[in-house]
Amino acid sequence: MRILYHLPLSPHARKVRLVLAEKRLPFELRVEKPWERREAYLALNPAGTVPTLEEDNGLAIPDSSVICEYLDEAYPDVSLMGHTLAERVEVRRLAAWFDGKFGREVTENLLGEKHMRRLAGRGNPDPGAMRTGYTALRYHLEYIGWLAETRKWLAGSVLSLADFAAAAHLSSLDFIGDVDWSLCPAAKEWYVRVKSRPSFRGLLMDRVAGMTPPKHYDDLDF
Amino acid sequence: MRILYHLPLSPHARKVRLVLAEKRLPFELRVEKPWERREAYLALNPAGTVPTLEEDNGLAIPDSSVICEYLDEAYPDVSLMGHTLAERVEVRRLAAWFDGKFGREVTENLLGEKHMRRLAGRGNPDPGAMRTGYTALRYHLEYIGWLAETRKWLAGSVLSLADFAAAAHLSSLDFIGDVDWSLCPAAKEWYVRVKSRPSFRGLLMDRVAGMTPPKHYDDLDF
Repeated sequence: MRILYHLPLSPHARKVRLVLAEKRLPFELRVEKPWERREAYLALNPAGTVPTLEEDNGLAIPDSSVICEYLDEAYPDVSLMGHTLAERVEVRRLAAWFDGKFGREVTENLLGEKHMRRLAGRGNPDPGAMRTGYTALRYHLEYIGWLAETRKWLAGSVLSLADFAAAAHLSSLDFIGDVDWSLCPAAKEWYVRVKSRPSFRGLLMDRVAGMTPPKHYDDLDF
Repeated sequence: MRILYHLPLSPHARKVRLVLAEKRLPFELRVEKPWERREAYLALNPAGTVPTLEEDNGLAIPDSSVICEYLDEAYPDVSLMGHTLAERVEVRRLAAWFDGKFGREVTENLLGEKHMRRLAGRGNPDPGAMRTGYTALRYHLEYIGWLAETRKWLAGSVLSLADFAAAAHLSSLDFIGDVDWSLCPAAKEWYVRVKSRPSFRGLLMDRVAGMTPPKHYDDLDF
């Protein structure tokens, strides 16, 4: 069975879980704690990050962007990358936006400070970073809302990796209660649509020791 | 004419310049200062980063990884992404390694502190960051040397985006005199091979006001 090495609240791993589920590719989840720098894991992925996908034939694919490109080429029946050149540019631009810009400005400052830092035993969150994160989150929610109001899905007329990249980050932040959805009804309406997909069920069932997500986390009608 | 908005020492822009030249796609270079946040540029690339490629038909492609994926799909005659699924995973893994891990650990701590910070008027370099950068550079040169000794090119038997991603970062660091090539002869031997390609000429002719690259910078036989 295909294995995905992950951490439950890693947005990059969640994006891959959504893509695998959309493509109906079965997989087994294994928790990997990157800070332990386990040798057998570094052999699969020298960068030591999560996620890494290991195929039945032994092929190890590190890095969530590399995994998503691979899955699109290896299993093209359900494509999440757009069709025309211009569509594919827009899907990849937004996936890079959420994993890059949103990740640095929001996720690292909130999930990174409040959860990942504690998990890896690296002390207390930095209040300054958290303030920066909340401010950036407002601005990003507005951008998502604007995209969702002007297009059917974030990158255009079809559901794509851009939606799953954005939803993966927001789902992890939502788990720790950091998303005030009332700030942007258009972003919320889009998130409800993505969250209602069967591919999202696995994420909504995630539970993490010592943490209780807010009530609306797994509510499809929040 | 196709336009590439860039900064001369941006490794991400240099990677795209190498790929365009390898594919023999003519382009015009335009310097863009991202910190000025020029409105017409933000319309092309809302993230405001360099590089952005603008095609003759008006299509704007931001983000160097997105540009390289686009160029591979739009102009597949000279492919730099590998052929089999496993080759393509390795090319993309290493391109992500250099633009991600090497970029954060080395380039941002050296080129970022010593050049980009001053260019954007953000004060003096942080000596601690620079020490971290030099230490990480040694470790990365060893990894490059190890790859170059066990394979013909970094990702395998054919020249690929992985070589150009690595060489782009190293060429910018070499321009500011930060690469001690004597540390790793195998990495140097590989770099000489990449640097001797006609696609590299444009990079070797770059000059930046107020900076003199070391003598060996444009010497193909250094």
